[in-house]
Amino acid sequence: MKNVTVFGNGVLGSQIVFQTAVHGFRVTVCGRSAESLDRAKKSIAGIAERYQKEIPGTSAEQIARGLANITYTTDRALAVADADLVIEAIIEDLKEKQTFYKDISGLLPEKTIVCTNSSTLLPSDMAAFTGRPGKFLGLHYANHIWIQNSAEIMGTDQTDPAAFAEVVQFAADTGMVAVPLKKEKAGWLLNSLLVPLCVSGCLLYAGGYAEPKDIDSIWRIGTGAPRGPFEIMDVIGLKTVYQVLMMAQVSGAKEFAAVLKSDYIDEGKLGIATGEGFYSYRK
Amino acid sequence: MKNVTVFGNGVLGSQIVFQTAVHGFRVTVCGRSAESLDRAKKSIAGIAERYQKEIPGTSAEQIARGLANITYTTDRALAVADADLVIEAIIEDLKEKQTFYKDISGLLPEKTIVCTNSSTLLPSDMAAFTGRPGKFLGLHYANHIWIQNSAEIMGTDQTDPAAFAEVVQFAADTGMVAVPLKKEKAGWLLNSLLVPLCVSGCLLYAGGYAEPKDIDSIWRIGTGAPRGPFEIMDVIGLKTVYQVLMMAQVSGAKEFAAVLKSDYIDEGKLGIATGEGFYSYRK
Repeated sequence: MKNVTVFGNGVLGSQIVFQTAVHGFRVTVCGRSAESLDRAKKSIAGIAERYQKEIPGTSAEQIARGLANITYTTDRALAVADADLVIEAIIEDLKEKQTFYKDISGLLPEKTIVCTNSSTLLPSDMAAFTGRPGKFLGLHYANHIWIQNSAEIMGTDQTDPAAFAEVVQFAADTGMVAVPLKKEKAGWLLNSLLVPLCVSGCLLYAGGYAEPKDIDSIWRIGTGAPRGPFEIMDVIGLKTVYQVLMMAQVSGAKEFAAVLKSDYIDEGKLGIATGEGFYSYRK
Repeated sequence: MKNVTVFGNGVLGSQIVFQTAVHGFRVTVCGRSAESLDRAKKSIAGIAERYQKEIPGTSAEQIARGLANITYTTDRALAVADADLVIEAIIEDLKEKQTFYKDISGLLPEKTIVCTNSSTLLPSDMAAFTGRPGKFLGLHYANHIWIQNSAEIMGTDQTDPAAFAEVVQFAADTGMVAVPLKKEKAGWLLNSLLVPLCVSGCLLYAGGYAEPKDIDSIWRIGTGAPRGPFEIMDVIGLKTVYQVLMMAQVSGAKEFAAVLKSDYIDEGKLGIATGEGFYSYRK
C-alpha cells in the first residue's frame, strides 16, 4: 500500500490523515468544497503541532515531510483514482454512509480496499453498498491517535482474509497497535469493555452509594488507571453517555439517563468540551 | 485513636498492621498460638522490607520505628483491653466471623470501634454479633496497601455517624485515601466496577471475538490503564473469578465459568500465583 484516501474532515479524520502521512504514505484528503478543505488543512496543521509537542523526539523535518505527503481535492474520482486504501470517517449516520459508498463504488479501481471508521455501526450494515464486500471492513481508531495508538480491525462474513491481513499490516506500518477481531461485534472491543464500566459507575452514583469523585478515586487507586469512569465519561461527552444508557439492558440505566438529561445535558453540562460535566474544568 | 488491635494474620492482616504501625499508631497483633504469631512476625518483617524497597525515601529508621510500635499476644482479653479500634481480617467465612464477634464482644471496652475488612460479606450480616452495632462498620483495604492505598468505608443502617467519621479520619491518618460509601453495597465500590469489566472481557473471549492478549491490549492503550481485564483476573486468581462468573446475572457467564474450570482451574492454572493463568508467568 502506498496511496491512501481519507473521506471525512472531523476530529478523527484529521488525525488519521496526519498519522498516515507522517508514516510515509501518500494521503489524499477529499472534501465537499474548498471551504471544507481549508478547514481540514487548519485542523491537520493543528494536529501536526500536537505531534511535535506531545511525541518526544519528533523533529520539525518529520512534521514537514508528513505535511508534504498530503494532497487535497474536492474531486472524488481523482481522489480515489489510484487509491490502495480508502478510509471513510464521515458522519456517524447509516443512511449517509450507505449513500457515500454507493456514490464512490463506481469510481474505485479494482485494487482498492475500503475501511469504515464507524464505531457504532457494523461494517455488514454497509458492505452491500460498497460494490466490493470482499474488500470492505472496519478499521477503528481511538481519539488522540498519536498517544492512544490502537486500531481495531473487524471484518464481515464476506471480507477476504487477504484484505483483512493487508489492513492489519497497514495499521502496524502507520504506528498503530493492530488489534484484530475474529468476527463482528457491536461496540467493537474497547466500547464493549468501557460501556459496562461506565454504566456500573453510573448505577453506583444513581443508587446513592457514593459520589463520582470517590468512585473515580477508588478506580484509579485500585487499578492504577489514570482516569475513573466519570472522568472518562466527561471526555466521551455526556450526550453520547445518555444514548448508551438509554440502550443499556441494565436495571436503573434508563432512570439515570433521565437524570443525566435534566441535571447535566439540559443545563449545558456536556462534559470536558463545555467546561463542565460530572466535574468542572473551568479555572 | 491510638491503640489498634488487628485479628487475622493473612496477606492483608500483615499489611494493615504495618501500614498502621508505620504511621505512629500502637498496634497489637492477636494470634491463636505462638506459632501463628511467629508466622505473623515473619510476614510483617517481609512487608516492612517491601516498604523500604518500594516507597522512595523510606528510611531504615522509619521502618524500625514502625516495627517497634507492634506488640504480639495470644491473649484476646489483653489484646483488646485498651483498644480504640479493632480491625478484623480473619478468614472470609460468615460463620467464623460471627463466632469471632460473639467471642470478643464481652471483652471489648465501651470505647472500642470495630471494623471488618471483609470484601464479600456485608457488615450488616455480622453487626448483631458484635454487641455494638453503632460502633461497627466495614473498612476495606486493597492488597498491596502501600501502593494501592485506598480504604473503602461502609456502615450499616445502625452505624453511628460519629464512629463512621472516626474511621474515615483513621484511614486518612494512616496514609490511606479514604473513600466513604453512603450505604451498604455488596462488592463495595471497587468490585462493583471490576466485576462488570472482567465479566465483559470473559464474554468477548468466550464469544470468540478476540484473544485475551488483544482484549487487554485495547484496554491498556484505549484507557491508559496499566493492566487489562485478563491480567487483572490473573492477579485476583481464577478460582475467585470462577465464583464471580457463577454468580453473575449475565447471559453466557456460567458457560464461560465451566470452560474456566475445565481448561484452567482443573489444569492447575490459577493465575499469577501458580505461574500460569490466562498468561504464562514462567521464565
